Amino acid sequence: MTTTTAPAPLRVAVVGAGMMGADHVARITSRTSGAEVVAVVDPDTERATAAAALAPGAVTAASFEEALEATEVTAVVIATPGFLHEDVLLPALERRLAILCEKPLTTDEEASLRVLEAEQRLDRPYVQVGFMRRFDQGYQDLRALVASGDQGALLTLHCAHRNATTPPNFSEEMLILDSVIHEIDVVPFVVGEPIAAVEVKKPRRNSLAPDGLPDPQLVLLETVSGTIAVVEINVNVQFGYQVTTDAVFERGVASIGREAGLQVASAGRSGVAVPPTFKERFGAAYDTQVQRWVDAAHRGGIDGPSAWDGYLASVVATAGVEAQRTGERVEVRYALEKPAFYDVAARGEA
Amino acid sequence: MTTTTAPAPLRVAVVGAGMMGADHVARITSRTSGAEVVAVVDPDTERATAAAALAPGAVTAASFEEALEATEVTAVVIATPGFLHEDVLLPALERRLAILCEKPLTTDEEASLRVLEAEQRLDRPYVQVGFMRRFDQGYQDLRALVASGDQGALLTLHCAHRNATTPPNFSEEMLILDSVIHEIDVVPFVVGEPIAAVEVKKPRRNSLAPDGLPDPQLVLLETVSGTIAVVEINVNVQFGYQVTTDAVFERGVASIGREAGLQVASAGRSGVAVPPTFKERFGAAYDTQVQRWVDAAHRGGIDGPSAWDGYLASVVATAGVEAQRTGERVEVRYALEKPAFYDVAARGEA
Amino acid sequence: MTTTTAPAPLRVAVVGAGMMGADHVARITSRTSGAEVVAVVDPDTERATAAAALAPGAVTAASFEEALEATEVTAVVIATPGFLHEDVLLPALERRLAILCEKPLTTDEEASLRVLEAEQRLDRPYVQVGFMRRFDQGYQDLRALVASGDQGALLTLHCAHRNATTPPNFSEEMLILDSVIHEIDVVPFVVGEPIAAVEVKKPRRNSLAPDGLPDPQLVLLETVSGTIAVVEINVNVQFGYQVTTDAVFERGVASIGREAGLQVASAGRSGVAVPPTFKERFGAAYDTQVQRWVDAAHRGGIDGPSAWDGYLASVVATAGVEAQRTGERVEVRYALEKPAFYDVAARGEA
Amino acid sequence: MTTTTAPAPLRVAVVGAGMMGADHVARITSRTSGAEVVAVVDPDTERATAAAALAPGAVTAASFEEALEATEVTAVVIATPGFLHEDVLLPALERRLAILCEKPLTTDEEASLRVLEAEQRLDRPYVQVGFMRRFDQGYQDLRALVASGDQGALLTLHCAHRNATTPPNFSEEMLILDSVIHEIDVVPFVVGEPIAAVEVKKPRRNSLAPDGLPDPQLVLLETVSGTIAVVEINVNVQFGYQVTTDAVFERGVASIGREAGLQVASAGRSGVAVPPTFKERFGAAYDTQVQRWVDAAHRGGIDGPSAWDGYLASVVATAGVEAQRTGERVEVRYALEKPAFYDVAARGEA
Repeated sequence: MTTTTAPAPLRVAVVGAGMMGADHVARITSRTSGAEVVAVVDPDTERATAAAALAPGAVTAASFEEALEATEVTAVVIATPGFLHEDVLLPALERRLAILCEKPLTTDEEASLRVLEAEQRLDRPYVQVGFMRRFDQGYQDLRALVASGDQGALLTLHCAHRNATTPPNFSEEMLILDSVIHEIDVVPFVVGEPIAAVEVKKPRRNSLAPDGLPDPQLVLLETVSGTIAVVEINVNVQFGYQVTTDAVFERGVASIGREAGLQVASAGRSGVAVPPTFKERFGAAYDTQVQRWVDAAHRGGIDGPSAWDGYLASVVATAGVEAQRTGERVEVRYALEKPAFYDVAARGEA
Repeated sequence: MTTTTAPAPLRVAVVGAGMMGADHVARITSRTSGAEVVAVVDPDTERATAAAALAPGAVTAASFEEALEATEVTAVVIATPGFLHEDVLLPALERRLAILCEKPLTTDEEASLRVLEAEQRLDRPYVQVGFMRRFDQGYQDLRALVASGDQGALLTLHCAHRNATTPPNFSEEMLILDSVIHEIDVVPFVVGEPIAAVEVKKPRRNSLAPDGLPDPQLVLLETVSGTIAVVEINVNVQFGYQVTTDAVFERGVASIGREAGLQVASAGRSGVAVPPTFKERFGAAYDTQVQRWVDAAHRGGIDGPSAWDGYLASVVATAGVEAQRTGERVEVRYALEKPAFYDVAARGEA
Repeated sequence: MTTTTAPAPLRVAVVGAGMMGADHVARITSRTSGAEVVAVVDPDTERATAAAALAPGAVTAASFEEALEATEVTAVVIATPGFLHEDVLLPALERRLAILCEKPLTTDEEASLRVLEAEQRLDRPYVQVGFMRRFDQGYQDLRALVASGDQGALLTLHCAHRNATTPPNFSEEMLILDSVIHEIDVVPFVVGEPIAAVEVKKPRRNSLAPDGLPDPQLVLLETVSGTIAVVEINVNVQFGYQVTTDAVFERGVASIGREAGLQVASAGRSGVAVPPTFKERFGAAYDTQVQRWVDAAHRGGIDGPSAWDGYLASVVATAGVEAQRTGERVEVRYALEKPAFYDVAARGEA
Repeated sequence: MTTTTAPAPLRVAVVGAGMMGADHVARITSRTSGAEVVAVVDPDTERATAAAALAPGAVTAASFEEALEATEVTAVVIATPGFLHEDVLLPALERRLAILCEKPLTTDEEASLRVLEAEQRLDRPYVQVGFMRRFDQGYQDLRALVASGDQGALLTLHCAHRNATTPPNFSEEMLILDSVIHEIDVVPFVVGEPIAAVEVKKPRRNSLAPDGLPDPQLVLLETVSGTIAVVEINVNVQFGYQVTTDAVFERGVASIGREAGLQVASAGRSGVAVPPTFKERFGAAYDTQVQRWVDAAHRGGIDGPSAWDGYLASVVATAGVEAQRTGERVEVRYALEKPAFYDVAARGEA
């Protein structure tokens, strides 16, 4: 008979009870081992209550501070709008909570630098950023294939990022900041090196996009060794949600993200369903991300993109917005060298 | 602020610490919410200890009774050889534990009847049988398509069930009892009605199968309304593990189980990997099965195939073995009508 | 400078100006090198004239004899109903014309034997039977794979033969005589050995089939070494025309006939078109068949299934109809051994 | 009985007996209706004789003029190196022969203009340029889909053009002049409008390419309404020949060129063969091109890209080479407006 005892579950406060926050409440409560939601935070009491109803025993609170007073909290999931992230990140770091922060880390570089600074005062990284694609089986396999060298060096990537529709107030900048931000994180993850330059090409506009939105765009991300990823960002394709990558190597081509599942031949066509939204496409990646974050927290670490990765993405995104505006190739300048502090941070690898 | 409290996790004893049992220990510990392994039972102390090492705080025991004395147990996963299932099922039922019993329920019809009888003395079904294919997304989608009537009535199915290799002592009967048993359960699940007759055809033998094993075979399962499923059981195909179904409707055909994932064009070929074993192919189904069983237990029920389904499968399997031996079409005779007791049992539906 | 001269084109009479005959007129006129249609024969003058309009210079005639008198004929394509084939085959053989006879060779075994006898009085085979699937790239590749032995011995095949709809007077026997006849020819072509037994299973009837037609059926064709082909004949599937084969080897599985071509993702689905009829699916095979028959005629031979193959198919088809009627496994008895005369007949191989 | 007579076959001189010329000799002789090769021209007597051996009755000649004297010629296929095309085009036009000229029309714009001028002195276009992709079923389907408007306007295309290897003396310019020239013709064919600008991006070099060749490259072709085609030209991918296009519309995405055919699951992989060279990939397109050119010649016209299309392609190619050299976006300036003379030229449409 052994005598070890099972660790107490993480006591998670979910901050922000919108769609993403409510999703996380349901996920942690129903499909995650080793964690429970003990507080749901939102100034909108109705939303907070609705989300908390999914988590038996969870309290609701109007602010993060109120939640900390109301119950014992050992971890936090931040799902508020990006410009509010810093307000939760800093006190959460001070308390050394396990932190899962939805992307982006912050909405400007200065805020990111403040977070990095605060974190580096601690013994180790506590912040994991919610770039969930790193947990998708496809990207994991692709990264492994690159690292293996089996197909030779990676030369170029074709990435498609397609959404059915956007809300009317979706701006051109959001194409980069909200959408391409995923490729900005996952391309370096796959290639194994940072992005060095960004350029944006604007093909013929989709007349079904909201007025004034120059959608789609082709965003060329160039890494330091010269690999070019051509990202088609295209967020009003009407037909569904589709995220694919073709990776071109010296002696092979690898593709991920083609639709699979129930194949039906009927009425003159044979094919499969295209998922309607990112939730169906990346649902398993979200689950894996959260489970691995929880597991790492129990071990005293993170297991996915760190605040440093969040910072890198925000620098590239800023360059991307400039490239959109100018039509020029914009080189990316990182203000910092990577601190040794972040070398040990886990990377969401298989 | 709400005041509900989170339920205490299920305290699971895993009985049998072989490959399947150890898998369940890891799954419940690492990827299941609302349950923890508190005991691992195996007469082989080494195996028990190795499996228990995956579950912090779990005790080991040589027998189920010993485990019940050593710690508080509220649920049991039975992963011993089939002929030993009854010895755990009966005391577990007596204690009204939540029970997940690996297939088959028992190895003979009489034992199944004893289990059904014992269970019906209770207030509701407690036994869920581990026919995990019901939790595979493909079969779920196919069942939903049948139920929708969108493609008309289901007329015939082509099922392939292919294994890379078998152990040397794998007998002809085991083709039915160990392998086709999955189709024997899942075909009625998809079609929505029981199997009425079985017939077996033996094509040319695979010379790579162990000596004397007449592998592959074609097993024709006929349901009560005349749908015929042709099951190719083929367990020495060398190239990997492959389970596919083509379902033929009045106005469409639906297919599940084709390989997907990372597509690589290299060295003159373009394609995807075939999973080596059932673990890769049905890993997600196992996870879903266990999570849903745990969730149902918290609600006071089961959510998957019941002991009744286990009984049905064992009756069909017995007929299948006779069909193998005689070369004749064997009609399936069920000794019992379905008791109302089992009408409420959940069935692993989406 | 060379001095050889190009051979004069075959002067083809097309007998039968229905859909198949008219197709052949167009094919020979527009897409075939080394042949021209000089006569179109049909008792229905209107049909004959319409078809002849596709072939500049072609005469029309009410009978084969009339055509022979009207113009010089060196080859004949027989596209009349099967029971009329013998009436053209015998005089055409007498004149040693190059003959392409649509399937079936004849509608009964006795007539086939008469044709075989008449042909064997000549110096070599003159009759090629229009089993065009032998010229489909897929079947060619599959036969080559079997012959290579690369995947080990062939053990079993799953063949689907699906038509959108049938005319109202399509009888149960025609499922075998008109439809499965193609598999009856092509399965031995692929496997490399004759069919030894036939059995028919009748699953649930498609309510969209014409009244009284027990459609679909599963036809089990067993070759002499025990390979079993399960043929799903299913001729009212509504959604299109689909002919597929999965061939199961000792260490691999090969599939042909999945739809390909323009892949469209739109309105929540991603897929390809299913061809509406056999013409789109096998159009290239028909072209290849006719070109190779013409080329072989110029060389003084045939290059595809011979009258002997036509005879074998008719014997198996007769057994198949008996199997339909009795529900029993019917062994196929060939009255003749293969004459050496037919050993040199070309085989439609790549 | 009708009285029309079949037209005499085209009497074709094939000029140039290298790989392409010999291919055309075989194609016209064996798989084309309504044409015969009567002369094979090549200064290399051995090559001429070898190719002529494929065409019974064909003479060989060291020059085009010699062939014209030796036999009656009514049509010519030009398969010499591009810089020699003009020398055959001008006398062939003078004689009003039906002309099929392999791409490129000529190797510089001035020569193209001379050919256009000579042709416009005649009653109608006589020159068809061998951009065979227009006859590929995939491009035909894609063009039809664009024209239908079913998926909305076409916004962007992703084209991959991959070759296994190149000969050692393949220069950077040839990436455009020999390879991308196909996309330079077929993109306007699909989009339905001319190319307005070209830009070239050079990703990481394939170390398996011949020394000094900056392969692969991304060539951005922008049409007048702003559709952007990103062409990946990549000619040392080792694994085979692959030409694919993903066309992105306002409400759908269409793809052509994925490998199809015999699907084999074996040794842990499931997939299809990648064709080794352009001959397997576009063999049917070559056949269709030649048959339709022959048919059009009999009607007194052409049925495919005209000399005007050849001129447009050469202008864009020149801009492409400048874009390669400068790294800048180069606008394409056409010296001429399209003459009405070319409005009636057929375009290789379905």
